[in-house]
Formats: sequence, structure tokens, C-alpha cells
Amino acid sequence: MRDVAVIGIGMTKWGELWKKSLRDIYVETALLALEDAGIDRIDSMYIGSMSSGLFVGQEHIASLLADYLGQLPVPATRVETACASGGLALRLGLMEVASGMSNIVLASGVEKMTDVGGDEATYALGTAADQEYEGYQGITFPGLYALIARAHMQKYGTTREQLAKVAVKNHHNGLKNPLAQYQFEITVEAVLNSVKVADPLNILDCSPITDGAAAAIICPADMARKMGKPLIKVIGTGHATDTIQISQRKDMTWLEATYQAAKQAYAMADKKPEDIDLIEVHDCFTIAEICVTEALGIVDKGKGGEAVEAGLTAMEGKIPVNTSGGLKSKGHPVGATGIAQVVEVTKQLRGEAGERQVKDARVGMTQNMGGSGGSSVVHILERE
Amino acid sequence: MRDVAVIGIGMTKWGELWKKSLRDIYVETALLALEDAGIDRIDSMYIGSMSSGLFVGQEHIASLLADYLGQLPVPATRVETACASGGLALRLGLMEVASGMSNIVLASGVEKMTDVGGDEATYALGTAADQEYEGYQGITFPGLYALIARAHMQKYGTTREQLAKVAVKNHHNGLKNPLAQYQFEITVEAVLNSVKVADPLNILDCSPITDGAAAAIICPADMARKMGKPLIKVIGTGHATDTIQISQRKDMTWLEATYQAAKQAYAMADKKPEDIDLIEVHDCFTIAEICVTEALGIVDKGKGGEAVEAGLTAMEGKIPVNTSGGLKSKGHPVGATGIAQVVEVTKQLRGEAGERQVKDARVGMTQNMGGSGGSSVVHILERE
Repeated sequence: MRDVAVIGIGMTKWGELWKKSLRDIYVETALLALEDAGIDRIDSMYIGSMSSGLFVGQEHIASLLADYLGQLPVPATRVETACASGGLALRLGLMEVASGMSNIVLASGVEKMTDVGGDEATYALGTAADQEYEGYQGITFPGLYALIARAHMQKYGTTREQLAKVAVKNHHNGLKNPLAQYQFEITVEAVLNSVKVADPLNILDCSPITDGAAAAIICPADMARKMGKPLIKVIGTGHATDTIQISQRKDMTWLEATYQAAKQAYAMADKKPEDIDLIEVHDCFTIAEICVTEALGIVDKGKGGEAVEAGLTAMEGKIPVNTSGGLKSKGHPVGATGIAQVVEVTKQLRGEAGERQVKDARVGMTQNMGGSGGSSVVHILERE
Repeated sequence: MRDVAVIGIGMTKWGELWKKSLRDIYVETALLALEDAGIDRIDSMYIGSMSSGLFVGQEHIASLLADYLGQLPVPATRVETACASGGLALRLGLMEVASGMSNIVLASGVEKMTDVGGDEATYALGTAADQEYEGYQGITFPGLYALIARAHMQKYGTTREQLAKVAVKNHHNGLKNPLAQYQFEITVEAVLNSVKVADPLNILDCSPITDGAAAAIICPADMARKMGKPLIKVIGTGHATDTIQISQRKDMTWLEATYQAAKQAYAMADKKPEDIDLIEVHDCFTIAEICVTEALGIVDKGKGGEAVEAGLTAMEGKIPVNTSGGLKSKGHPVGATGIAQVVEVTKQLRGEAGERQVKDARVGMTQNMGGSGGSSVVHILERE
């Protein structure tokens, strides 16, 4: 397999983009990535999107977006594994370049979530859970993660305040990210006093509904070297599944798919958790970030809450988590999130993260997750 | 890139399977493929599905089906490019094996279309067209293909009877396929007298609404050889896009994405149209088969109607097309169709096609198509 590098990244301001359509948002973002890479043609493209069918009544977006991006007749592929669709787009692009089938591949993600009302958006997101055994019984995603949070609190003594501190940290980071949907600080008190969504989770424990896209261009590392680009290599990839229903898991607090995907990525990259300088993780809810840091081996099992409280994962901590603001502050256009993580890590490894730059960042990781953890995609990137 | 072979195939009887859920149909089919391959573990799986979100309210089927198939924690990926999702699943599996990332990959497709009513199914299928510029103007798929048919008739003198003969041929073939949804003969008169759907297309020009799945297991050719399997190699793959709107094409009667995908596959396989012994093509409507045979270079531009009339594409013709019965008789569970084509070609190349066996079949081709031709995936298989 050939070594692969990221040579271009693109992302626009995320939010409730009522004046733009899915195709507008996508093309604007993909063009930024092409410009950043200094190229105008690609060999192939991957688009992560969770549910363009339910959100905007449009499947077949691979054909649509290849067309609107002016890249016909390139092969264009939409991939989906709920909220981990973006991470998957990078992984498949990586395999295509690694196999020798293509050289320059656009790995991207997009979701336009605000064209429908809140109930419809909740329904669409709920299709990432087991519809027959979870959705039809009335549970939605805040409810599923609330169950995980309760179990974690009971088993490990994780506190309500520790959950809140994940959101406070991520908003603090997001304040320095001009592309974030919610660029403002919040306090522990604000989280604790915000509207209850599903006990123990309040509205400020939840990532928002967002319109947005993100794009990354990859090519063989040898080609990137010849182009004189800063060499940001994708040195590890992992992808794994777990039961789609949380009730079927041995331990609701343990994200097995994330653990397995990370294990693969660490092995391929020949890295250990202590080699990682920063991580973008899938904090769709505050409890998710806590469970993910445990599954990635960054902290011990059950210690995720304590770690955030101790500042271990803060910008100035031992291992900064979600310097971009995470899903909580940056926003969570579901199919785009996995690629936005790659955009942030690439910026950090290039030393282009401005006010939120992690000093001497050399190795970064991304962890993207579908549903309540039924799938996960992990990547490790390194600056040569 | 490593050579890749098909070592297992699975398909169950297609139709209106009201007593079975998407997961039932899928697992039953995938187990047949595992049994046929003589294995019980896979390294990775791909699932083509056009719109499980709109048809059964379930996204994230990669996690769901890996779980129900008992294959956790394997990486599982759902891919979508409308009705060409199945073909795409094989292509991505092929790249994964070719890259060396995995050895044994399940490439599959599934669609459960009859859990919704006719209007909802028409809406769901319509999301493969450009929703904003085609769907919202009131056109559905029979209408789009009717426009193509009218243009073909006007430009090349293709007749209403020639269209009918595509359906008659495919039903004749499907009669010999025990897994086909509609196992009965039809006549030209029956097609001409059937209910008008969108002038000039009648109901018997249209493929049906179907529940079904199909599965194929691939691995490195060297491994297949050691297993003592009949060596059916996938020697060519192609994937391309065209404008999603037919109004944006230079010539509505020409399927550019199919032409480009075939060009790639012929080049990779080092084959020409005259080397192909049989083809499974995407006859979602009778006119589609005519246009596809032209784009594949099997007949000259504009001659697709004459070719079917002359019997060139019949079972006993120079190049049998749709020996399985095609989408028309076998059924068209959209995400599964591309893999069912691979199942048929593999059966033919193994010499296991029973009453519909093409004598001395050595090289076969599959052509799968999304929307009104906005995307297409082509494969060439060869028996060693």
C-alpha cells in the first residue's frame, strides 16, 4: 500500500444556513479544498452524508455534486454510516489511493439539516438507532446517551458537573474557531441550569442541528512531496462496528467499536495513545466525549469524567481534545463532522490553527462515531 | 493491485416479501453467499442500498447488518449511488482487497421497497433525480425515461414494438430463473395493450417494485486458487458520472456515464465489446436497455432497437443480454440489483445457470446505473 498525504482542506462557517442549499454549501467548501491543494482536477470523490434523503429529499448526491463541482465524469461515491459517514469517506479515499486505482481523491462530507423542522430532524437522526427495537419504542438520541450517562455515573461515580465541563471546555476552544457555529463561552452553571432534554442531559450537553460541509484532498505522499506541500500523512485508519442497539451491549458505558477502530489505527500507525499530541473526538453529547477518551486509551476505563475535571483534555492539558470546539461548539452537520475533524487536525499539524494552535503538534487523531456507537472510524495523521 | 476473484454468491427469491423485514432478507441472502464460499468469517463488508431511510426509516444499516449477520466488529460500509449502489459495493470491495487492506470481503445489496405505499415508493425513487430541477417540477422516473424514449424514437426511428421486444425477451429469460419475481412470458401485444404510464412507456415497459437482496464474496485470486474454487476473476471495473438532470445533457439518448465506465472497465480488463460472452444490463425501463447496449459499444449508436428486434441480444443471439430476466422480470430492489447482476454472471461463468446457461461463457459483463444515467458502474468478470 502506498503512503497517503492530505494536500488540501476546506471548510466554511457552519450554522443555520437558510439561504444556501446542500449543493451550494458543498461546492463552496470543496472549492476551498481544491484551492488549498492548488489543483483543479481530481480522479475520484467520496461524500459522507447520513441522510440527504430524509433531510432534503435527495439521494444520488454523488452524481449531483460531481456535476455541480464541475468534475464530471469522475467516479463519485456517497458513503453512509450515520454520523461517522465523514470519517468513512476519508477511509475509502485512502484505500483508493493506497490501492493505486487513483492518485488525487476528494474526501468530503455534507449535511443540510435545517430545511426540515425539529421533529423531522429528530426523526431523521433517530434512523441511526435501531428503528424497530429503539425508535419505535419512543427513544431518541438524547435519550440513548442519557441512558449511557446514567450508567456511567452509577458505575464510575462520574458527576453531573464533570459532564458539564466537557461542554464548557469545548465552547472555550470553539471561541477561537471562526468557523464554529456557536462562538461563545458557557459556564458550568449555565449547563446545569439549561433546559432538561433527557435526564441527566440538558440542552447544553447536546451538539446542535447544523448545516455544513468539509473537504480534504489526499494523494500519494510521493506526489505531495513533489508538490512541495507540508507533508501531513494519514498513517493509520481503523473502522469497526458494534451492536446498533445499546441494550445488546455487555456494558453500555463502553464503546467497543471505537476501541476496535482505534486498535487498528494504532497498530497500522505504530503509535500508542501517549504518542498522540491532540485528538478530535465525537462529542455529540458530553457523555460521549468521556466514553470516547476511555475507549481510545487516553484515560483509564471510568476515568473520563475525572480527566476532563482535572484539565487533562483542555487546550493546555496533557492531551488537548477537540481544539476545534468539537461537535458541541463547532456544530454537527452529521455527514460532514468526520471530515471537519481531519480539517482541524491538518491545520494543527501544519501549524495554521491560529489562536488555538497546539504547540509542536506532530501527531493527531480523529475519532468519528455513528449512532450510539454502533460504528466508529479512527484516523491518525502525522507531520513528516 | 492484487487480482480478485468471486468465491461465493447468494440470492433468494425476489418479490413482494411482506412477511420479511430488511434485516431478514439481507441475512438470509448473505448466509447463502458465505455457505457457497465455504467460510464463516469475513474481513469487511459493503452494502449497497439506495434509500433505506425513505423505504424503512432506517439509516446506519452497516452497523445493523454486521450485527445481525453475526460479524461484529468488522468494518461495514453502506454505499449509495441510487440504483447503482450494488455495483458500487462490489467496486469498493474490489479496491479494498486489491489494496491489501483486507482479504475476504462481502459485497452486497439490499432494498425493502414494499413497506411503503406506491406514492411513497415513487417519491423515494424520485430522489435519484434532481429533486430541485426535476422532482419539484412533477416528473418521476417513468416520465424521465419516456422523454429519453421519445427522443430515441425521433432521432433513430426506434419503434414502439422494439421497446416492447426488450420486455418480451427479458420475461422469456426470466421464466427460466426460479428466483425471478415475475416468472411468466409476455407478448408484444400484451406490452402494447398494457396500461399507459408515461407515453410511450406502458406498465410492461417498467421494472417493478421489489424486495430483495444479493451477495457476493470476493478475495485475492491466489487465495481462491488455494481454496480450489472455480476461478471467476473480476478483471475490470469502471465507475463514472454524468449530469443528474437529463435536460443538461448534450444528447438525451446517450448514456455518457455508462460509456465512460465501460471504457475504464474494457481498458483495465484489456477486452473489447466483441470479447464479451454475456451481459447483465440495467433495464429499469425497456428504453434503458436499448441505450445501454449502445453506450457499451455492443451495437452502434442508434441501433439498439434494431438489435433487439433482430434477436442479437436474445439468449441464442450473438451476445445474450439479461439472461437472468433483467430488472424487468427478475425484479428491481434498487440497491441489490448491481450485485444480482454479478450473481448471474458468476453463475453463467461457473456453468451453473441451468436452463438459461449460455454455452461456453467465459467473459461476462455487468452494467448498473443510477437515476436516469447520472451514474454507472461496470464490471467485467472472466473464468480462468
